[in-house]
Amino acid sequence: MTLVRKNIAAMQGYVPGEQPRGREYVKLNTNENPYPCSPAVKAAIGRVCTAGLQRYPDPQATEFRERAAELFQKRLPAITPDWILCGNGSDDVLTIVTRSFVDSGDVIRFPRPSYVLYETLASIQGATAEVVDFEPDWSLGERFTAPNDRLRLALLANPNSPSGTMIPPEAVARLAAALPCPLLVDEAYADFADRDCLSLVADNERVLVSRSLSKSYSLAGLRFGFVVGQPHVIEQLNKVKDSYNCDALSIAGATAALDDQRHFQRNRAAILATRERLAGDLRKLGFECIDSQANFVWCRHPRHAARPLYEQLKAAGVLVRYMSYAGWGDGLRITVGSDDQVGVLLEKLGTLLA
Amino acid sequence: MTLVRKNIAAMQGYVPGEQPRGREYVKLNTNENPYPCSPAVKAAIGRVCTAGLQRYPDPQATEFRERAAELFQKRLPAITPDWILCGNGSDDVLTIVTRSFVDSGDVIRFPRPSYVLYETLASIQGATAEVVDFEPDWSLGERFTAPNDRLRLALLANPNSPSGTMIPPEAVARLAAALPCPLLVDEAYADFADRDCLSLVADNERVLVSRSLSKSYSLAGLRFGFVVGQPHVIEQLNKVKDSYNCDALSIAGATAALDDQRHFQRNRAAILATRERLAGDLRKLGFECIDSQANFVWCRHPRHAARPLYEQLKAAGVLVRYMSYAGWGDGLRITVGSDDQVGVLLEKLGTLLA
Repeated sequence: MTLVRKNIAAMQGYVPGEQPRGREYVKLNTNENPYPCSPAVKAAIGRVCTAGLQRYPDPQATEFRERAAELFQKRLPAITPDWILCGNGSDDVLTIVTRSFVDSGDVIRFPRPSYVLYETLASIQGATAEVVDFEPDWSLGERFTAPNDRLRLALLANPNSPSGTMIPPEAVARLAAALPCPLLVDEAYADFADRDCLSLVADNERVLVSRSLSKSYSLAGLRFGFVVGQPHVIEQLNKVKDSYNCDALSIAGATAALDDQRHFQRNRAAILATRERLAGDLRKLGFECIDSQANFVWCRHPRHAARPLYEQLKAAGVLVRYMSYAGWGDGLRITVGSDDQVGVLLEKLGTLLA
Repeated sequence: MTLVRKNIAAMQGYVPGEQPRGREYVKLNTNENPYPCSPAVKAAIGRVCTAGLQRYPDPQATEFRERAAELFQKRLPAITPDWILCGNGSDDVLTIVTRSFVDSGDVIRFPRPSYVLYETLASIQGATAEVVDFEPDWSLGERFTAPNDRLRLALLANPNSPSGTMIPPEAVARLAAALPCPLLVDEAYADFADRDCLSLVADNERVLVSRSLSKSYSLAGLRFGFVVGQPHVIEQLNKVKDSYNCDALSIAGATAALDDQRHFQRNRAAILATRERLAGDLRKLGFECIDSQANFVWCRHPRHAARPLYEQLKAAGVLVRYMSYAGWGDGLRITVGSDDQVGVLLEKLGTLLA
């Protein structure tokens, strides 16, 4: 007999990438940024500590939403703070969106291979996951927009993980228009891409765009993300979020990080340069490697199985992410670290493949 | 036409107590602790900032769970870290527990008047709230344990808000044994009470006890809570929580706060002394005032309606919580602030009632 709901008892929990405690690895497995966040973050957090932590935080993270609305005004002229809802990481945003739209017995649709958490979100909600394979060119075909009476939400990581590929905003707009349900465009990696889908939100109330500060602002440890949508939709999502889902430190830290756009741009430029080097050198080692719009590279080697490579790298002190999708295949997802980290990785790989 | 689920569209969002920005009030409305947290918290947060925020936090908050297990060993000898799950505030814990046990269409039972959020949790989950009135002596009668085929979870705030009353652990054990479903004992205020229900968890797998660091550790701004349950139950709840639901700063800060038991005990003693003074002086002003086991006092005045009193106090710069429960009645819930704050409140009340 089980105390919990059957769908919970039956499911496997989501297993995040290894966060080893103890041994120090060259850690290229969970798409963390190798560089520290803006020094303004620590200063802002210090000020909150000095003012005291005994009071509840602003339930609406108003300060952050005001700054984000200013920042995005060029790409989305209609935006005001009420187009934005903040979350305790963008995973919290994904949970809020799922709970808002999807009932037990409904259907959630998303592509394969993509962010593994989507399957978990469906299981927790007691919903059915409808998985649509990417086309060989990493676009999505008509199956992604096909009618289904119980379909309530479609999720699209763009850029996608693990592939690092991106569906152009025009094509995403067409998918959203054809879909019979809301579409959440998960832009956790969009800050590393050439383009993004923010502007689509103005044209279609059924488009939501989520963002994370974990990767591009070096704040994975802080937990801060947000979602952009039309105000009447955000108003509904607001009912579903925990009242105080963002703490006082993360609101202040995230706001300070967003304000330091110079630091952000420098950091981004460094990652993009290293990404090019990493992909080029992987190809020289014989890897098939997709052009990436994110802070990681997805690769497979025609003569070397991915899992033993992952294991040998780990034994050599380098952690990358081995990913395997039932019915689809496997490969290695390698985070774009610092030049030094990538140097160590390439050296170890060179030895292993020699 | 609505995009979101019908239950979401139909519900009112939970409205937390006012968190005014701008004017400074004597703020006695949301049960925040008037005293600062342990200085060790700021030091621990500073160390995390210095080490950097670019990495994901420990998904299991292991450091905190280890220390909490040590601390609670006297009251619950069986406890080890796997009896504990941490949350982004105890509201996050309540959400995780609700999602784990309750499906759309199921029933959640809780007393009235109690924590208003319980109703919201039921609505979001698409569940029915079954509300059982407290008896005149603030105990719970047989209706609370009555059979119901769809009943999946019972919630009991103990000490209760807004009454500040407590059902003794032996009586809670009997309720849990008689209930056909798990019972979450919400001990957000238990640190201010004479007793608690922690030990019940060892005897009954269907008892869960949740705690918050918001009030008794002066950390409302940090968002940290946890739930204690038998390991096989905690294992299931773990599947439902967001992977990284607690950030690196809050894990370090909460652990440091827990470690400083001297600060905690001093703070608690101050609150308890002021609570006695507050209740005594309210009675002198003619209020009916229940003996409180929490950091607030619930009161009504036989000759003065509660809402105008709340409004007049607010106009005079003192915020208390006016609470009204449909079909039950209303009153004022006054947080035990510092002696100075309570002095201002009593002086204003004296003038208003004169």
